[in-house]
Amino acid sequence: MKKIKTILSVTVMVPMFLAVTFHEGRAEQKKEGAPPAIKEFESRSSEWGKHYPKQYETYMQTQKSDEIFDALKKDPALVIMWAGYPFSKDYNKPRGHYYALEDVTNTLRTGAPVDAKTGPLPTACWSCKSPDVPRLVKRDGEMEYFTGKWAKYGNEAVNTIGCADCHDSQSMKLTLTRDYLNRALDKEGRLKSANLTNQDLRSLVCAQCHSEYYFKKTEWEDKGEKKTAMVVTFPWEKGLLAENLEEAYDSYGFSDWTHQLSKAPMLKAQHPDYELFTTGAHYRRGLSCADCHMPVVKDGKNKVTSHNIGSPLDNVATTCLGCHEGTEDDFRKIVQEKLVRKDELANYAMDILAKAHLEAAKAWELGATEVEMKPALQDIRYGQWRWDFAVAGHGSFFHAPEETLRLLGSAINKGQDARLKLRTILAKYKAADYVAPDFSTKEKAQAIIGMDYKKLVEEKETFLKTLKPQWYKEAEAKGVYDPASRKDMQLKTSYK
Amino acid sequence: MKKIKTILSVTVMVPMFLAVTFHEGRAEQKKEGAPPAIKEFESRSSEWGKHYPKQYETYMQTQKSDEIFDALKKDPALVIMWAGYPFSKDYNKPRGHYYALEDVTNTLRTGAPVDAKTGPLPTACWSCKSPDVPRLVKRDGEMEYFTGKWAKYGNEAVNTIGCADCHDSQSMKLTLTRDYLNRALDKEGRLKSANLTNQDLRSLVCAQCHSEYYFKKTEWEDKGEKKTAMVVTFPWEKGLLAENLEEAYDSYGFSDWTHQLSKAPMLKAQHPDYELFTTGAHYRRGLSCADCHMPVVKDGKNKVTSHNIGSPLDNVATTCLGCHEGTEDDFRKIVQEKLVRKDELANYAMDILAKAHLEAAKAWELGATEVEMKPALQDIRYGQWRWDFAVAGHGSFFHAPEETLRLLGSAINKGQDARLKLRTILAKYKAADYVAPDFSTKEKAQAIIGMDYKKLVEEKETFLKTLKPQWYKEAEAKGVYDPASRKDMQLKTSYK
Repeated sequence: MKKIKTILSVTVMVPMFLAVTFHEGRAEQKKEGAPPAIKEFESRSSEWGKHYPKQYETYMQTQKSDEIFDALKKDPALVIMWAGYPFSKDYNKPRGHYYALEDVTNTLRTGAPVDAKTGPLPTACWSCKSPDVPRLVKRDGEMEYFTGKWAKYGNEAVNTIGCADCHDSQSMKLTLTRDYLNRALDKEGRLKSANLTNQDLRSLVCAQCHSEYYFKKTEWEDKGEKKTAMVVTFPWEKGLLAENLEEAYDSYGFSDWTHQLSKAPMLKAQHPDYELFTTGAHYRRGLSCADCHMPVVKDGKNKVTSHNIGSPLDNVATTCLGCHEGTEDDFRKIVQEKLVRKDELANYAMDILAKAHLEAAKAWELGATEVEMKPALQDIRYGQWRWDFAVAGHGSFFHAPEETLRLLGSAINKGQDARLKLRTILAKYKAADYVAPDFSTKEKAQAIIGMDYKKLVEEKETFLKTLKPQWYKEAEAKGVYDPASRKDMQLKTSYK
Repeated sequence: MKKIKTILSVTVMVPMFLAVTFHEGRAEQKKEGAPPAIKEFESRSSEWGKHYPKQYETYMQTQKSDEIFDALKKDPALVIMWAGYPFSKDYNKPRGHYYALEDVTNTLRTGAPVDAKTGPLPTACWSCKSPDVPRLVKRDGEMEYFTGKWAKYGNEAVNTIGCADCHDSQSMKLTLTRDYLNRALDKEGRLKSANLTNQDLRSLVCAQCHSEYYFKKTEWEDKGEKKTAMVVTFPWEKGLLAENLEEAYDSYGFSDWTHQLSKAPMLKAQHPDYELFTTGAHYRRGLSCADCHMPVVKDGKNKVTSHNIGSPLDNVATTCLGCHEGTEDDFRKIVQEKLVRKDELANYAMDILAKAHLEAAKAWELGATEVEMKPALQDIRYGQWRWDFAVAGHGSFFHAPEETLRLLGSAINKGQDARLKLRTILAKYKAADYVAPDFSTKEKAQAIIGMDYKKLVEEKETFLKTLKPQWYKEAEAKGVYDPASRKDMQLKTSYK
């Protein structure tokens, strides 16, 4: 009888992948007449592509994942839940890596700066979008990189996620290019940054971005001048569970924002894919992100590690079926079943939390006091955090279905607890029957929070016509921009 | 690379088990000088044991699972949740099959009948406890079997769950001895009773008892006399999910009882192990209950299918490790992790639902009307059903962890929805601040519902000293009782 590998067993699963990965790289680098070596901190992926054309070709296929799916339109409760925070303006499902930089530039979240010093967001918002970031950190220093407004680096962070985010340009080895992950690992203690195996790195290069972080306000001195940096920081020191991170945030007295309606001290989960992945079965078996998201595919007679990173369901034959028996259809069904379960609980949670914010707003309006409101607002903070942690990662419902459902159950409980407390407060202020307004469309929800959406779009459009193209021109002049990285790019947004 | 079998694949996993099962049986039956054949409907397992001593020996090891664990003491919220229903009196974790009949006889739930006609429960309560049941159905007819009080068959249902519950005494083949399961299968349609494979039966003989059922009130005529039977019926015709069964119950207008405090029309889940098992990964892979709960074990040079049915964790080496790689410790940790997740959500749900009942009771007390209360009571019905469905099966948190967590999330949501509605009603009746009384111990909870526990125990003790021993004497005189089935039995209860 065949044995099912349930427990960490790197020896069987991994070497096949590794062998291909390294062999590909080295073989090509040694070719006669090969182009000159890649520069250190070369952020233009097309330069790497001259040496690794097959990998580059698969990488460029992320261009096919181009659909704009407006999450606020699908779930208007999100607008209420994020009131007062940029996500209430614009939030789409992720597209391929090819679009990462384009989308952060186009989203209403990053606003409409008119020069290098206008807001609203800090430089840190580039951190996950471009291999120019390690180049800039090297050039300017990490503290300077994290100081100032997002627009400051508009003409520098001009290449979308690419080769230099994960590889060392000299050895081609996987490498962590973001020091904040090294620091977080050393604090967390499960893996030490000095002793990472290649299999660790096949997840951790992804975890540089696919993790939960916050912007830690950090005062520093630059040749006598006092500056404030907003430093990307992973709150991992108490562990990787949602409750561990929540405890860490509580210990810092940290909130991402004060909710516009409820005044609750909110946390926004980023995309804690890695944290949740570590609670699931595939991690336990020793698999890495790359094992499923970067399958080895055939290219004529050769094999190549696909850099077309996306859903393994796009290619079940080379992903799931590399280890499991079954048909493609079986696997699609299994994943779909998990998605439906997650969606059921997530939908409850969204409805509950949106209503909790609105009910809290009503209580404030009627004269409720801070002392009365505090316990309910605390429940909202914790409830929304757990929901967000469970769903913000793109595939957590699959990577860790049980942990995801547990968190959603907990989110529902906390959210409803908040509403129970608010109901008692509302009763005190003669509004026991209060019914939250209808937020069943994105437009209705944005009207409730008084968002001038039209103005946001107009300002953004001005930015898109003026500053954005100027950035690329300036970058090209500096020789840091790779026009190939925006080949055939078409403007696609949720608002146009 | 080894393949992991995720999809139905009976061919690889099953034959090994089957081969052993049948070989054991037949080999022994053909022995020279073997004892006379087993009678049809022989309910005394020791008679079967003369032909199958090894199986009988393992079966008798279920005696070792003898701990009385008082679930009401651990979770006093249960007393509130089941107020007005027998489970509020007494509910222990299950012990080995050896104790099934003893425990249903001793529990306060079955009350203290003083003769064959006194209550409180119907004959149907024997259905899952004894191989005397198919014998009685054959002798008296199914409708007569399901007519009358539990005590009617006190001197007939005297052998605990045993050989004749699952095997045909002539062919030794697995067989469904409870026709209500055949009927349910034919209505449900996934498996037809006429076409069951042996692998189907390796789960379905268990499903005869480890399923959800209700007592369907059925009028019938016995030679001109009108009688009412309470027929065990599986509400499977809309599917096996909790919501499918709930829909079926709603369509019958069925409630197990009206809650003593909230007056909600309640459903009590029995032990829907089979239904939840069919939503999990092991079922999908084609495994049966017996594959993990009845491992093939060594007995000297021979192999024997263990009939010591219990937790596979008691014997990880011959259960989990029969298919999976890893250490025993790994598997215990994995299961423990699932248990902790389930417990977290189940604990929320219990607290919420108990409070909902108490808050509803307060609303009634203050003068709330049926129209006002109905929506909240409906939420309580659905919330408690989902919680109960998720936890009443002994191992569902393991068999189907995702479905279990989904249901608990839904239970939390419904329970909290009820409480929100009740809070508005309480406010209307000037009790917006109402706080449910403390139910943190079994004694406090039983006091809240006005249970005269001392009296229940005293009456039960009288029953244990009088009618119970009389039943066994009468049964022995009739030649249907197997004293070996109660070898070394000691009185162990939660109340003494």
